Amino acid sequence: MSLVLSEESIKEIVDDIGYLIEQNNYNYIKNILIDLHPADIAEIISYFSNKHREYIFKMLEPDVASEVLIEMDNFRRNKLLEALDEETITEIVDRLDTDDAADIVSTLPDEVAEHVLDSISEETSKDIQELLEYDEESAGGIMTKEMIAVRQEQTIGEVINEIKKHSEEIGEVYNIWVIDNKNVLVGALPLKYLFLLPPEEKVKNVMDTGVIYIESGTDQEEVANIFKKYNLVSAPVVDKDKKIIGKITVDDIVDVLQEEANEDISKMAGIVKTESEIIVEGSVFKTFRLRLPWLIVGFIGQIGSAFVMSKFEQSISQVLASAFFIPIIMAMGGNIGIQSSAIIVRGLATGEIEFKDIWKRLLKETGASFFNGVVLGILIFVIISFWLKNPNFGMVVGFSLLAVILNAAIVGTVVPLVLKKFDIDPAIATGPFITTANDVLGLLIYLGTMTVFLKFL
Amino acid sequence: MSLVLSEESIKEIVDDIGYLIEQNNYNYIKNILIDLHPADIAEIISYFSNKHREYIFKMLEPDVASEVLIEMDNFRRNKLLEALDEETITEIVDRLDTDDAADIVSTLPDEVAEHVLDSISEETSKDIQELLEYDEESAGGIMTKEMIAVRQEQTIGEVINEIKKHSEEIGEVYNIWVIDNKNVLVGALPLKYLFLLPPEEKVKNVMDTGVIYIESGTDQEEVANIFKKYNLVSAPVVDKDKKIIGKITVDDIVDVLQEEANEDISKMAGIVKTESEIIVEGSVFKTFRLRLPWLIVGFIGQIGSAFVMSKFEQSISQVLASAFFIPIIMAMGGNIGIQSSAIIVRGLATGEIEFKDIWKRLLKETGASFFNGVVLGILIFVIISFWLKNPNFGMVVGFSLLAVILNAAIVGTVVPLVLKKFDIDPAIATGPFITTANDVLGLLIYLGTMTVFLKFL
Repeated sequence: MSLVLSEESIKEIVDDIGYLIEQNNYNYIKNILIDLHPADIAEIISYFSNKHREYIFKMLEPDVASEVLIEMDNFRRNKLLEALDEETITEIVDRLDTDDAADIVSTLPDEVAEHVLDSISEETSKDIQELLEYDEESAGGIMTKEMIAVRQEQTIGEVINEIKKHSEEIGEVYNIWVIDNKNVLVGALPLKYLFLLPPEEKVKNVMDTGVIYIESGTDQEEVANIFKKYNLVSAPVVDKDKKIIGKITVDDIVDVLQEEANEDISKMAGIVKTESEIIVEGSVFKTFRLRLPWLIVGFIGQIGSAFVMSKFEQSISQVLASAFFIPIIMAMGGNIGIQSSAIIVRGLATGEIEFKDIWKRLLKETGASFFNGVVLGILIFVIISFWLKNPNFGMVVGFSLLAVILNAAIVGTVVPLVLKKFDIDPAIATGPFITTANDVLGLLIYLGTMTVFLKFL
Repeated sequence: MSLVLSEESIKEIVDDIGYLIEQNNYNYIKNILIDLHPADIAEIISYFSNKHREYIFKMLEPDVASEVLIEMDNFRRNKLLEALDEETITEIVDRLDTDDAADIVSTLPDEVAEHVLDSISEETSKDIQELLEYDEESAGGIMTKEMIAVRQEQTIGEVINEIKKHSEEIGEVYNIWVIDNKNVLVGALPLKYLFLLPPEEKVKNVMDTGVIYIESGTDQEEVANIFKKYNLVSAPVVDKDKKIIGKITVDDIVDVLQEEANEDISKMAGIVKTESEIIVEGSVFKTFRLRLPWLIVGFIGQIGSAFVMSKFEQSISQVLASAFFIPIIMAMGGNIGIQSSAIIVRGLATGEIEFKDIWKRLLKETGASFFNGVVLGILIFVIISFWLKNPNFGMVVGFSLLAVILNAAIVGTVVPLVLKKFDIDPAIATGPFITTANDVLGLLIYLGTMTVFLKFL
């Protein structure tokens, strides 16, 4: 029985192992590791230096080592792989499921990858190479070749015997897929049928024919949505002739969901590539290059702001205090724009909002923003009236603020919906685009209003 | 065999049913619905008005109706529940798994809930009431009471017989939990053992004793992290005496992950409550109230900006063009701050970044931002030199921009890490707090630098 290790227990074990390394007391380290789950070992060794991590890793039995490697983060895994010899890597790859094996092989230098693929069994090698050909973010790219497929003419008893023969290699089984003599998927056999039904029963007569399958080219985000919608634990993947070529299980989907959420957040923050890659692998220079494009977009937009302001130079010089409130106008427009667009972008990603809802959303976002604009407009009017003793100017700033806020809500709502309609990723828009558009439009509204009412100020 | 329905097929079916409703051709609608997955029916009826949705829903067999209801979004589900009579609701609740039943019952008006709980079997009613007592966001709040637990003294054959007796009620089974005579969890029995092992084998001798279990009070975000870390499909939930009280399956976890990602994004965008609630249920007024607090935080900060600027009134009036570049200074500081903090916040949420990494992260974020600052600083210098024919002023703006960017990177990196250290949710910080701090500090840096070099401009 094992309760999950708490953060504290993990750290205690790290301290213990650190102490044992200092003492050169290697046997004890082995004794500690032997009771631990591979996922915990992966976490524990992440605390050590590269040298000590290699050292601990090499103590592990190949079966455990392969599982630990899969649970490590990309950055440390790649570092570790660099330090392992080809034989050890081959031993590890040979023990992994093909999807994990393909992940590892794809990160190896070409000549090492070739050596590994030549040294493992021909069948596994072929499977791995097949998986490497699919787009990484497609169903084919996340599926594994390990699965149980039986023919529809077989009996339950025959199926059991076949599974018995391979029971060593088969890890967790959730579903058995049924195929015809051309390997075309025709159904599924729930595992419980194997002990609930008589052995002489034909698979064909009892199989579930309503099985949901996935085509190999389907994008992983869509695969995740299918798993979510239909509450799947595993699903068969088929080629264009409906022949079964692999399966996807829900633990891969959990990773995909995380990845996609990270991607959305990164894009909204103006980062082009998926965040996880940046966190673990990105060098300073890579991070710099990935972020620069969005900064340039914002930069160009703000040169527009500077240009707008230069056109209002005279109004500003007449009422210099108008410059003081440029930050508040910009910040409030920016905040409202992000609030509206964040809701829309996430709603679109999770399927809770669609283009058909545009009027409903617009009404709600402008409605909520109107009330916020009124509250903030009155506040700024009161503050300016007392601080600068100029209620007329306070009135102009207050009204401009309301107008800027309404504009920001409309832009923040409409832009992502329209982009989605044209199949452009709306998460991109929520970052620099909407903020910059709102800044420039906000300044135009503010300085324009002020200029119109200049003679009253 | 069913390929997943595409968006287009769904819309075609919606059109067909709409046409049939117009024609009062009810039998055909039933024929269309009978072949569809409950999740697809839920999506299809979301396109109809409340009246027609009720109408279609009432055509469904109770078994299907209950599954459709669970797949609907909260907003439409609550609307529909309001329109159903107590008997229909009772029939539906009676057919649901206890976790879904508890979700439904918790949204019903008190007297309806009472009626429903009185009308269903006493055992189910007790289970549902037990579930309702747990915190919604804890393991107890997301678990279900349906599970298979067997005693360790039983044989494989006895277990099979017991499952046969209940095979009607049991949906998908992934794991069988093993308990002692005090209901204390002692192990798990993989389903495949039931057909791979001889029937006379004792459970005690073959069970897997390394099963990971979850305590009922564990927060759902932590439960999700445990499922991810250990790649679980289901896990038993125990009380403080380690007695088994329920189970959690991975499809609930998929929902939790989505919810938590939405929450992070919402907070970063300055929205206090979880976004999903706002999307589907929030009225205009509720949305307004939920967003106002963060806007006020930003507002107060920007009054600080106005105050800073008023202190530099003289410098601004001497070089009026300095006001033109306030938007670019603020926007670039804001963008850099969000880029840095978004990475940190997500990394902290997914466990990829920890406080111990603070120096590494700081080096990386300031490093990448330094290069970006140099590029943007040179750009603004060139633009000002040509546009305003004032290279000295361009130099001051360029250097200030670099300083503002570095400051923003440091604030964006350090603030979320420190908050996390003190157990404050770092996602909150990424929104208005960091942006506002960066705006005020950025203005101080920019106007301060300009004032120092004023005589050269």
